[in-house]
Formats: sequence, C-alpha cells, structure tokens
Amino acid sequence: MSPGQPFNDKVLACAERNSSWVCVGLDPAPERMPTGYRPEPSEVLRFNRAIIEATSDLVCAYKPNLAFYEWMGAEGWTALRETIRSVPSHVAVILDAKRGDIGNTAAMYAKALFEELGGDAATVSPFLGTDSVKPFLRYQEKGVILLCLTSNPGARELQIKNNLHIQVAELSNEWSQINSNVGLVVGATQAAQLRAIRAICPDRLFLVPGIGAQGGDLPETVRAGAGRDRLRLIVNAARSIIHADAGPGFAEAARREAQRLRDGINNVYSQPVA
Amino acid sequence: MSPGQPFNDKVLACAERNSSWVCVGLDPAPERMPTGYRPEPSEVLRFNRAIIEATSDLVCAYKPNLAFYEWMGAEGWTALRETIRSVPSHVAVILDAKRGDIGNTAAMYAKALFEELGGDAATVSPFLGTDSVKPFLRYQEKGVILLCLTSNPGARELQIKNNLHIQVAELSNEWSQINSNVGLVVGATQAAQLRAIRAICPDRLFLVPGIGAQGGDLPETVRAGAGRDRLRLIVNAARSIIHADAGPGFAEAARREAQRLRDGINNVYSQPVA
Repeated sequence: MSPGQPFNDKVLACAERNSSWVCVGLDPAPERMPTGYRPEPSEVLRFNRAIIEATSDLVCAYKPNLAFYEWMGAEGWTALRETIRSVPSHVAVILDAKRGDIGNTAAMYAKALFEELGGDAATVSPFLGTDSVKPFLRYQEKGVILLCLTSNPGARELQIKNNLHIQVAELSNEWSQINSNVGLVVGATQAAQLRAIRAICPDRLFLVPGIGAQGGDLPETVRAGAGRDRLRLIVNAARSIIHADAGPGFAEAARREAQRLRDGINNVYSQPVA
Repeated sequence: MSPGQPFNDKVLACAERNSSWVCVGLDPAPERMPTGYRPEPSEVLRFNRAIIEATSDLVCAYKPNLAFYEWMGAEGWTALRETIRSVPSHVAVILDAKRGDIGNTAAMYAKALFEELGGDAATVSPFLGTDSVKPFLRYQEKGVILLCLTSNPGARELQIKNNLHIQVAELSNEWSQINSNVGLVVGATQAAQLRAIRAICPDRLFLVPGIGAQGGDLPETVRAGAGRDRLRLIVNAARSIIHADAGPGFAEAARREAQRLRDGINNVYSQPVA
C-alpha cells in the first residue's frame, strides 16, 4: 500500500548517519519571514528550501505543520507538497496535521497525507478511538504519531486531569500490533509525565515538541524520555531554529541553532542515562 | 475581525425560513460519484453545485468535511473554496475540520478556515485546552463547534469512559463568554449522553452527526437533544442524502432525502417535547 522504507527504520538510520535526534519544524510564520522573503507561497517554498539545504546533515527529520500552509489556500498546499519533495530522500518527513475523524473520513485524511502529500509519518489525534485511527494504521510502513501529551498549558485541562496520556500510551501498545511504526507526541514541558509514558512504551519513537520557544528543559527531557536501547526522542524545534535570525544570514543562523540543539542532546545522552 | 451575520443568528434565521434543521454534509465519496461525474476536483465541484441547487431551500446549513477535498491536493482545496462560494449567502457553511493545535498554530488554522475559505463556523477539537481554542474564539461572529461526543464506536474509549463530554460541555460554557457562537458536536448515537449535555447547555447550538448512514434514532435524538426554547439541533446527514442515488437522478434523490429528514425532525419537534 505504501512503498519505501518503514518510518521507524528511516528515522533511526538518519539519526545515526547525522548523529542527530533533531527535527526541524518547517512552520514559517508570515510575520517573521526574513529580509527579502514575502509571506507568499512561492517565497515560503524558497525559504524552506534554504532552511533544508542549511540543516539536512544535522537532523533526523523535518516536520511541517499543515496550518502554516493552509492559511495560503490552494497555493499553500502546493508549497507544502514541493517542500516535502525538497527534503532529501533519506530524511523522514513528519506531517503535523493532528487529524482525527470517524473511519470513512479518516481514510480520506490518510490518503491526503500519505499518498497525495507523500509524508513518511503523520500526527493523529486519538480522541475518537480505535476506528478513527485504523485507517492510518493500514499504511503499515508509515508512522502514525498519536497525540499523547501536548506541550501547551491547556494540556492540564483535559489530558493530564483525566490521565489521558497514560490511556493513550496503553492504546498505542495495542495499536502497534497493527502497525509497528506507531509513535507518540509527548511534550517536553512535562518531564514527570514523559517518564511515566516512557515506562509504558520503552521502545516507541516519541516526537517531542516544546523545546526551544516553548521553554522545555533539554537535559531533563532527554533523561526522562530516553528509550531502552537508543534515545528514540525526535526532538522538534521550529521557531527557535528557522526564525533564529530575520536578516540575510537566516540560513546560517538556522544551521547554528540546529547544531547547538543536536550537540545539546548528544552531550546529555552520551552520559549514562539516569 | 470577521464581518457578516453572527453564526447563531444565521442558522436560526435560515432554520426558520426553510422550516428546517437539516444540514447536508458535502462529503463526496470518490467511489460513489453518480453516473457522469468522475472523482476529480472540477467534477466534485459540479456535483456539489447540483446538490446545493437541489436542496438549499430545505436546509439550515451545509457542512463540507475537509478530508473529502484534501485527498485531491491543491485543486481539491480550490474545489472546496468554490463549493463554499456556491452556497446561497443566507445559508450557513460549517467547515468540518476538527482542528486542534497549540496557540500560534491554531491561529493559522483559524485564518485558513474563517478568512481564506470563508466558513461561517468550524469544528474544533478541544483536547488541547483553552489556549488552543482561543484563536478560534477571537473571531466573535464565527461559530466554534467543539467536539464534545462523537458518533462513532470509538467514542466509548476515551470520551465516554472519562466523561470528557461532560467536561467539554462545561468548558463550552466558560468559552461562550468569549464568543457566544460556541456550539458542540454531539453524536446522535448516544441519546442518554445527549440529554445530559443538553442539561448543561440548554441554549447552545449542537451539530448532530450520526443520523442516516450511522444509524442514530431520529425521534429519540430530537426528544433528547431539543433546546430550551427552540430545537437548536443542526442535524447533519451526508451519505444518506448526497449519495442516495448514483444514477442521473441523484439530485432529485438528494432533495427527496433532505425533505424526508426535515419532515421527520419537524414531525417529532412539533409534538410537545418530553
């Protein structure tokens, strides 16, 4: 159904090749485009290509969030598609879409993300339950990264209050029997919960937002979230890398910030994990 | 920020004008397109226009689900935009997107749905909490319809098990102080829960999927869900109306099914509500 290297293998191979667990969020903010780049589809694509060229040897994945393209309409969708095609084929592309809908609708979303756009993985909301996730799981080589615990303040209101993150982590173990490329989104802003989720899923890939602009503590996150055998934390940063500088040196600044994050992770993880 | 008639007023006025609480789901399934219509963007638009022309005096709203356009990529997005523009201006358009993301990202989704596409309302996932919903609420004339209890079997796994529907109904009362056009998605497949949610939100508009192809009981739903003063249930059906017939008479068949649903609702609601 979906040819190509399974998502987990692709991430692990690229993490090894580049000695990096960094994921760069390709979320170009219209009000932060650097000098000489207008917030328009063709310019956003040109900006993304510059970022990719400057960082692709320092990452294990890229993660465009669809919202940053949909506001530009049909041409934004085209810019997203071309951005995905601009990523070197050995680097994984995670489409951050957070879709979740009933079965027949979820099947159309899966088709859009995995076939039309060609992502290696997609973030999916698990709140509608098993029948809403299955259409994604059917693409057995694709990563299905479930929202487990988000990095924002509102995560406390429904997720943590009801221990949904624990329940989603447990569901992910069931669903991984249908597709071994199931992962979890676990925010870097909640180290204690991250540790609890890792205990339930010792070998699963976690996509970790919240480092960078959102203020998650990197050493604490790496120690709390490391997998049993390898790190298995895809550490995402968007704004703090792609918008590190708004001048003509934005690509070099992005490279510098990606390198700093990579080294920051490796400095902690090369130490014995507590 | 968003000109035009507030969503609630628009729905109530159209419901009165057409004596109808029916919402037609514009979710064209590629494998069910009628004779002479291929599953391609321009043909999907032509199909939608035929459905709208045949039913617009029988509905209070239309609800396209974005998944049924995104699988066709950029041109699908254009077909969606043109579909929205084909709806008569006095009929509300609800964009079923179920988006939910952290604040700065949610703001881009809101811009896409309310400004770029021009929907009167959007469905929003509340699971990331207040800061993820606020960017939608800021468009004070737009409807923000929160996933409260979905109509699918998996709703039992996280939503009902944790009483999330009750918590979301309570949050909707808080959030309605920012935007009075807050509504709830409440599936027709769970009459007891629908009654409980209505008790918490007696005057809010509910978008009710699950009648039709999903098998919710119409009289039971109307009795359990009726609002304090008026019905306030936007009863959605997609497949059972737009794909009622796959032959050349599909538009007449859609009209007949919309009329049947309208009359079915009115026959129950004109009776005293238990």
